[in-house]
Amino acid sequence: MSGAFDDAIAAVVPTDARAAAEAAAHHDRLTKPRGALGRLEPLGGQLAAIAGVSPPPLPSPVAVAVFAGDHGVLAQGVTPWPAEVTAQMVANFCAGGAAVNVLAAPVSAPVTVVDVGVASDLDDHPALLRRKVRRGTGDIAVEPAMTADEARAALDVGAEVAASLVAAGARCLVTGDMGIGNTTPSAALIAALCGHVPADVTGRGTGIDDETLGRKVSAVERAIARASRAGDLDDPVRALASLGGLEIAALAGFIAGGAAARVPVVVDGVIALAAAVVAHAVNPDVTAYLVAGHRSTEPGAAAALAHLGLVPLLDLGLRLGEGTGALLAVPLVQAAARVLADMATFDSAGVTEKG
Amino acid sequence: MSGAFDDAIAAVVPTDARAAAEAAAHHDRLTKPRGALGRLEPLGGQLAAIAGVSPPPLPSPVAVAVFAGDHGVLAQGVTPWPAEVTAQMVANFCAGGAAVNVLAAPVSAPVTVVDVGVASDLDDHPALLRRKVRRGTGDIAVEPAMTADEARAALDVGAEVAASLVAAGARCLVTGDMGIGNTTPSAALIAALCGHVPADVTGRGTGIDDETLGRKVSAVERAIARASRAGDLDDPVRALASLGGLEIAALAGFIAGGAAARVPVVVDGVIALAAAVVAHAVNPDVTAYLVAGHRSTEPGAAAALAHLGLVPLLDLGLRLGEGTGALLAVPLVQAAARVLADMATFDSAGVTEKG
Repeated sequence: MSGAFDDAIAAVVPTDARAAAEAAAHHDRLTKPRGALGRLEPLGGQLAAIAGVSPPPLPSPVAVAVFAGDHGVLAQGVTPWPAEVTAQMVANFCAGGAAVNVLAAPVSAPVTVVDVGVASDLDDHPALLRRKVRRGTGDIAVEPAMTADEARAALDVGAEVAASLVAAGARCLVTGDMGIGNTTPSAALIAALCGHVPADVTGRGTGIDDETLGRKVSAVERAIARASRAGDLDDPVRALASLGGLEIAALAGFIAGGAAARVPVVVDGVIALAAAVVAHAVNPDVTAYLVAGHRSTEPGAAAALAHLGLVPLLDLGLRLGEGTGALLAVPLVQAAARVLADMATFDSAGVTEKG
Repeated sequence: MSGAFDDAIAAVVPTDARAAAEAAAHHDRLTKPRGALGRLEPLGGQLAAIAGVSPPPLPSPVAVAVFAGDHGVLAQGVTPWPAEVTAQMVANFCAGGAAVNVLAAPVSAPVTVVDVGVASDLDDHPALLRRKVRRGTGDIAVEPAMTADEARAALDVGAEVAASLVAAGARCLVTGDMGIGNTTPSAALIAALCGHVPADVTGRGTGIDDETLGRKVSAVERAIARASRAGDLDDPVRALASLGGLEIAALAGFIAGGAAARVPVVVDGVIALAAAVVAHAVNPDVTAYLVAGHRSTEPGAAAALAHLGLVPLLDLGLRLGEGTGALLAVPLVQAAARVLADMATFDSAGVTEKG
């Protein structure tokens, strides 16, 4: 029996090149020099291609989902932050005090927090979806992060959350994540699936010293060597189970679910990009539904963006995660739709074109 | 008798370094790794310094003013667009169909259109301020753009518009411009005041071919040679009168007026930056009130940004003007204030700091 992730992947269709061409032609009729709106013009074309119509509908309402999980690789000393911060930050998201809440507010995006793999028990809260697949991952330096069945379950959680947010009216999805240590499995997945050596794509995450970085690179190297020996790198979902995280798996499902529902998915930093690399490996058509919100300072983000052929909208030196960089980009995505829908044409405004 | 511009320049005080330091200290207490919000953190500090208090107030309501003028240098064949497009676009702004209107709407910014130097007569419109100083400039390749008195009058118009928008409640000003040919005087001012050769800072504006670019560079070279011979480059307001445009002068006044009122001024592309260079030359304290919205593709913009020490928030390949790039950056400016005002601290949220 197939699950929500498989169904989503099967439902993804290529985006509509004809609608994109219509958007480009319409841009040339609007009261501005051709191409003068820079990146907003192809972005408007992408939104038209996603929706299958030009001008595209406004990508609104917006919904952000923050998937949370813990990581056994903390045993390797890859971060100075204690694991309990994951659960504490989940409580902060639910209480509305985190950066993701503050940046979701101006785009009127409700924040859905999803426990897909936090190590501890969490209290009930109206903003919290309890979808725990397991209590944190195994230590990827020495063992698989999770079983294939657990990876499938987490992928399904993400796909189901995307479908349910779209069913509730969302027309733009934003990826969010929380998991102390989760830049380590992200680096491992990006190294393995994009063909990089670990040292090139393993970064300082939220801020670590040289010694910690050395332990982190070593953990990624051992994880990839172990996964390779086990034959886990021949299949993207096996690689995800071997090297990933529960929130990363859920994000891959969320991305596939958004693409299946034909809504733009604005992806955040290196965690979401690792998930996007997994989804892309399963079905490359998914990627045309993605908008890269920003360029994180994490080197794995740049590698994943290049692998996926995505150019981020913002480059502000962010390295927070939670969905913050993607939320900051949402007004730009909406602006790209607005100019196509609302600007006057040379004809309608009686403006003379250049000689 | 001094005018509104002189009064504004005299009223500008250095921004408050202590408030900026308080904002930086507060950032380190918020529930995120230190520095993880990248550029938003010093931007929040700048907003605190401008307002003199941390956390800074939300830069809202927003108001954008689009200053319009025509340019005698069109006689040199510097653009394929006919001069009448300036007036046609003013009508488009008033009717709400231009890019600036579409991008002002989501930040709830009223668009004030100011005729400070359009060559033709314009019809009355509630959105149009009629402050025409003269009907277009002289051809700067062969004669001064305007007299010193006319430059003063246009500077005063800009300062008065800024003061009046702030008096009406605006807490964030956005620069806008319209004037067929106005990248030519902007390049001349930037070359003259930032010490560049014309060919390095003269670009393709809204899109011109090599032959037109050659004529444009030549026009800028002749303008600067003429101004230099006349001794016009020893004083920024004389340089403005000799090389500038009426809307550029008004923008310099607008920038000074915003700084005098202690509100952030989000500057758009090369036209606004040329005006900022003039205002900076008159009083360098003005510049601390400026936020560079974006990096225009025009080479003069990069030169002016470097001269002013400003790093733009966006780099989206825009080359439209009107205030569009600045308006797109407004949500980022507001986000910088929101995180300081609204995020929980480690203490308040019960989140453990890193070890």
